[in-house]
Amino acid sequence: MLVLLERGLGESSIGDIATRLRMFGLSIHRTDHGGQARIGAVGENAGVDWGAVRAWPGVASVEKLPAPFKLVSRAFHPHDTIISVGRCAIGSRQLAIMAGPCSVEGEEQAFTIAAAVARAGATIMRGGAYKPRTSPYSFQGLGEEGLKLLRRAADANGLAVVSEVMDSQHVPLVARYADILQVGARNMQNYALLKEVGHAEKPVLLKRGLAATIEEWLMSAEHIVSQGNTQVVLCERGIRTFETYTRNTLDLNAIPVVKELSHLPVIVDPSHGTGIRNKVGPMARASIAAGADGLIVEVHHDPDHALSDGAQSLYPEQFEELVGQIRTIAGVLGRTA
Amino acid sequence: MLVLLERGLGESSIGDIATRLRMFGLSIHRTDHGGQARIGAVGENAGVDWGAVRAWPGVASVEKLPAPFKLVSRAFHPHDTIISVGRCAIGSRQLAIMAGPCSVEGEEQAFTIAAAVARAGATIMRGGAYKPRTSPYSFQGLGEEGLKLLRRAADANGLAVVSEVMDSQHVPLVARYADILQVGARNMQNYALLKEVGHAEKPVLLKRGLAATIEEWLMSAEHIVSQGNTQVVLCERGIRTFETYTRNTLDLNAIPVVKELSHLPVIVDPSHGTGIRNKVGPMARASIAAGADGLIVEVHHDPDHALSDGAQSLYPEQFEELVGQIRTIAGVLGRTA
Amino acid sequence: MLVLLERGLGESSIGDIATRLRMFGLSIHRTDHGGQARIGAVGENAGVDWGAVRAWPGVASVEKLPAPFKLVSRAFHPHDTIISVGRCAIGSRQLAIMAGPCSVEGEEQAFTIAAAVARAGATIMRGGAYKPRTSPYSFQGLGEEGLKLLRRAADANGLAVVSEVMDSQHVPLVARYADILQVGARNMQNYALLKEVGHAEKPVLLKRGLAATIEEWLMSAEHIVSQGNTQVVLCERGIRTFETYTRNTLDLNAIPVVKELSHLPVIVDPSHGTGIRNKVGPMARASIAAGADGLIVEVHHDPDHALSDGAQSLYPEQFEELVGQIRTIAGVLGRTA
Amino acid sequence: MLVLLERGLGESSIGDIATRLRMFGLSIHRTDHGGQARIGAVGENAGVDWGAVRAWPGVASVEKLPAPFKLVSRAFHPHDTIISVGRCAIGSRQLAIMAGPCSVEGEEQAFTIAAAVARAGATIMRGGAYKPRTSPYSFQGLGEEGLKLLRRAADANGLAVVSEVMDSQHVPLVARYADILQVGARNMQNYALLKEVGHAEKPVLLKRGLAATIEEWLMSAEHIVSQGNTQVVLCERGIRTFETYTRNTLDLNAIPVVKELSHLPVIVDPSHGTGIRNKVGPMARASIAAGADGLIVEVHHDPDHALSDGAQSLYPEQFEELVGQIRTIAGVLGRTA
Repeated sequence: MLVLLERGLGESSIGDIATRLRMFGLSIHRTDHGGQARIGAVGENAGVDWGAVRAWPGVASVEKLPAPFKLVSRAFHPHDTIISVGRCAIGSRQLAIMAGPCSVEGEEQAFTIAAAVARAGATIMRGGAYKPRTSPYSFQGLGEEGLKLLRRAADANGLAVVSEVMDSQHVPLVARYADILQVGARNMQNYALLKEVGHAEKPVLLKRGLAATIEEWLMSAEHIVSQGNTQVVLCERGIRTFETYTRNTLDLNAIPVVKELSHLPVIVDPSHGTGIRNKVGPMARASIAAGADGLIVEVHHDPDHALSDGAQSLYPEQFEELVGQIRTIAGVLGRTA
Repeated sequence: MLVLLERGLGESSIGDIATRLRMFGLSIHRTDHGGQARIGAVGENAGVDWGAVRAWPGVASVEKLPAPFKLVSRAFHPHDTIISVGRCAIGSRQLAIMAGPCSVEGEEQAFTIAAAVARAGATIMRGGAYKPRTSPYSFQGLGEEGLKLLRRAADANGLAVVSEVMDSQHVPLVARYADILQVGARNMQNYALLKEVGHAEKPVLLKRGLAATIEEWLMSAEHIVSQGNTQVVLCERGIRTFETYTRNTLDLNAIPVVKELSHLPVIVDPSHGTGIRNKVGPMARASIAAGADGLIVEVHHDPDHALSDGAQSLYPEQFEELVGQIRTIAGVLGRTA
Repeated sequence: MLVLLERGLGESSIGDIATRLRMFGLSIHRTDHGGQARIGAVGENAGVDWGAVRAWPGVASVEKLPAPFKLVSRAFHPHDTIISVGRCAIGSRQLAIMAGPCSVEGEEQAFTIAAAVARAGATIMRGGAYKPRTSPYSFQGLGEEGLKLLRRAADANGLAVVSEVMDSQHVPLVARYADILQVGARNMQNYALLKEVGHAEKPVLLKRGLAATIEEWLMSAEHIVSQGNTQVVLCERGIRTFETYTRNTLDLNAIPVVKELSHLPVIVDPSHGTGIRNKVGPMARASIAAGADGLIVEVHHDPDHALSDGAQSLYPEQFEELVGQIRTIAGVLGRTA
Repeated sequence: MLVLLERGLGESSIGDIATRLRMFGLSIHRTDHGGQARIGAVGENAGVDWGAVRAWPGVASVEKLPAPFKLVSRAFHPHDTIISVGRCAIGSRQLAIMAGPCSVEGEEQAFTIAAAVARAGATIMRGGAYKPRTSPYSFQGLGEEGLKLLRRAADANGLAVVSEVMDSQHVPLVARYADILQVGARNMQNYALLKEVGHAEKPVLLKRGLAATIEEWLMSAEHIVSQGNTQVVLCERGIRTFETYTRNTLDLNAIPVVKELSHLPVIVDPSHGTGIRNKVGPMARASIAAGADGLIVEVHHDPDHALSDGAQSLYPEQFEELVGQIRTIAGVLGRTA
């Protein structure tokens, strides 16, 4: 339920109301909008007399949050969530540009690419140290060694770091090195992992599952936010359809839909979304034109020898040209890049 | 097969080679590129000795056209096909903007909307007179009366006309009034209809089927072109996926894919592709950013009372604002609108 | 609307009520169930005062037919529709077994296969004379010549004939030779064709489209039945999904769903549904176990040389063994084969 | 690679060959077929000179395992894997019938249902103690308390236990109570979890992901088997398609496909596969007719008050009738139930 408090109500009164609601066994989340405190009270609420709550002093009104997702909905939190990471404010007027290799492969590779993407305008470096691979016999990533390299390469170039965490047991380790914890598409409904990153102090990048509806994706974000971590960035990366020409079907329709339903920022991964280098640029441009808050792009200086996903990685020069085009398109929507 | 002739070969020699190929029972299609005549020889060619053809005087080389689609492939015809209709050259640097109501409903409606879309920058008017409806009990369109109204409203505003033809028997009738014959998504593999519009003198707008792969879509275009009508405009309008929030999933990945595989122009229908008015603008912008050659958009001055598809029709003012945004995005790609 | 008449009402009173309803511009369809006449009144009914109709003498009650499909719903017609063709009563306790080649290729082929499938227990022969082909360069069928061969081969073996009609203009021609007019998956929403077979005197086999929901499939059947032809057999033949191992995903869930929603018989085409010979038997058995009213199976005595679909055709001996297994499974459900 | 050894080769020679292969850094798996030892050597094998291996004494031949999945393929292990659990041999001629509630809810519920399903012919009891739920606010299961109840209820009725494990950290706990560790559809590509159950001493039931191709499903099984646990039972439970009438589309085509590609047993979950009680019976019958090795079915004595999935649970009497029908269909395929 959404409990709207009276405008200008003092903090101690707000605290009292929150405490009374907690005593029903509800989980209490607060936001403010237009000078008014708003309390989202979620959980099993069968026994609560909401008519009585409505009459409590300080309570302006009580409304049902209509969607199955509550805390991530615009109905609860009407204004855009902005998440600050390094020099970047994800969800603000400025687009978030994340770039880097699929996998961290070694020192030279990480530093070369970090320098290139920083020069081109990225503010966050991506790179995998733990890689989810369909085959148990494929390269699985460098592990902690990879995280260390990624951190050093990013630091040397003034970049923040986003990297994937694949298991609930690894969250503390990855959080030690990365600024943003990425939950991959295959783990979008790994609820043990969602719970764990929901307790982390770091922002989470939540990729959409290959067969996840937009509602299910937002429900997975709700799993994280309901644990207390409100810093969730959504990432569209393609869904599975009958079309086989592209690796996945990047669903850009999801961008305006998510922006309407939720206050969370949403970015796009055109590299996994298409799987084909010369389709990344057009889909990256289209993502921004559709209203995305940023991009996460695979860039490699030597993609022919990449240990994973070489065929979809941009060359540094292609990435630089793309960022230039993105800037102009961003301007059409009153944004910068 | 693709038979490349020697540069500068005279027309009579070219004619001779074409005639000899025809004698094998093949269908012969010609294009020119880089000062060189190219002959696409298609059909049942089991008995042809292509080694011998290679040695004919005037023949430079013989190559297999790799894709299952032949005449619509870039391998056969490397440069972009441009189709002139009224003031518009579809596939040129200038974007093709088509707009109008879902169905023609009456004189006032048709004239009001025609004036509005012309003022906003459209050059082609869309409007249905024969409507494919899931229910036999829904409004089926005004038929020939609707075509007449559409023609008059378009003429009064300097617009060309695109309208759907649903049956092979109706092709001559629709071709009497429309400048472009639209084949709808449900009829993308209605081969009798494809054959008939393949014999028409008018350009064809071929919508992608809801479950059609890009390859099947191009194969349907091949059905038309192989009958002699080379003026085919492809139109992406959404595919069917598990996602139910939007009516269909507009597949913008198809735009760069089609531009690589084929020389035919490709436009996007964001109205049917999303089914939701406030998603049309973002997806229209994204379409152009992805490289589409134009748009076909539903516009209605009174969508609440439209006899079909009101919920996805833009108001004239929204359309006008959209065309302005499109112009800036087009500039990023070196195009105009 | 469903107008239930009083039990035992005389024919002339029933006729009067039907006439009065027709005067509202409604299309009137009648069925009887449990000694009670039921009138389905469909069409644009905005102006009708149904409260007044309820009070007409002879009218027991008036109900809204809930689904978008009306005449094909069980709500209108509660008992199973049975369609007699040759020795077969499709939809009865006895399963309908249809078999034959994908395409009719010649006299010897047609007669050989007809004899084989008749011997194995089929009562209806399938065979294509007009073939919908993705490529314009593939074998398109023998046309009328093929229909003649099919008719003669079937007659010589006591079989009825089902064959595809691809265009509204061809309906009279195909109806001259075939006992059942097949509408293929690609034409499931070719409304001009549905209208035309809706006026034919022959039963129609309506295949489900590759991306058609069950509701849309039933709506296409409604298009036919609303024209007056109530003899429609539905045929599940696989839908398009992301899975690529099988050509299509045969959706057997549709069988119990259709049996609940509609009174029309529903059969399964495991040949197109899987596209792989050794998967046809298992899926045919599963179809009957799921409650299908019959099967349509491709059988060829020399599939390696078939002009189409050889890879999914059963050898005659395989078909014979399959029919034996089907008989036992049918028994579990109280049916015969 | 598949290394086939000479017939009748002694164990010590086999051991020597295995050791030499291990020294290349390969992981070695052995099976025997037709009196011949077969070694599957998997892992990064770039540096191995297989021509030389072919010439080793005792080696009959060396073949490439063609599919991306190696150890789970029939090419490696030609005969059916049979997994013994309690009174049941999964993958044998006798069908494996698993049944029970969606969630364990309490003592009375668990014991009532256990008795009912045992009486009807089930040999394995299903029941969730840790429940993956789309909403963080839904019932999440009773946890270890639920596992204890499940174990006691099963033991009292001579049943084995299958229950879901949702996180790598929970494997030892669930393995303490359950005979079979279930990996749910949402976790099919949770590689940390697959690795952990790959080290467990208990059989694993691996459900197919909603958007998983058959190949990806087998690759996930390969993740488990490559860790040393060869006891994997595959479970088809429906894939996600555009069809919305049923909760999922149960893909029975997968049954004959998996039986051809892999030696692992494959069962079907018609309860989640359809989500509708009266569709469970038809699809369960169809599963067995298609060749499945067993079923896992939700049964509840009071489904209207179930805490999860009541709408798809069979009543005990329905389950009993179903098992009877299954027995007859099993007989058609030379099996028992």
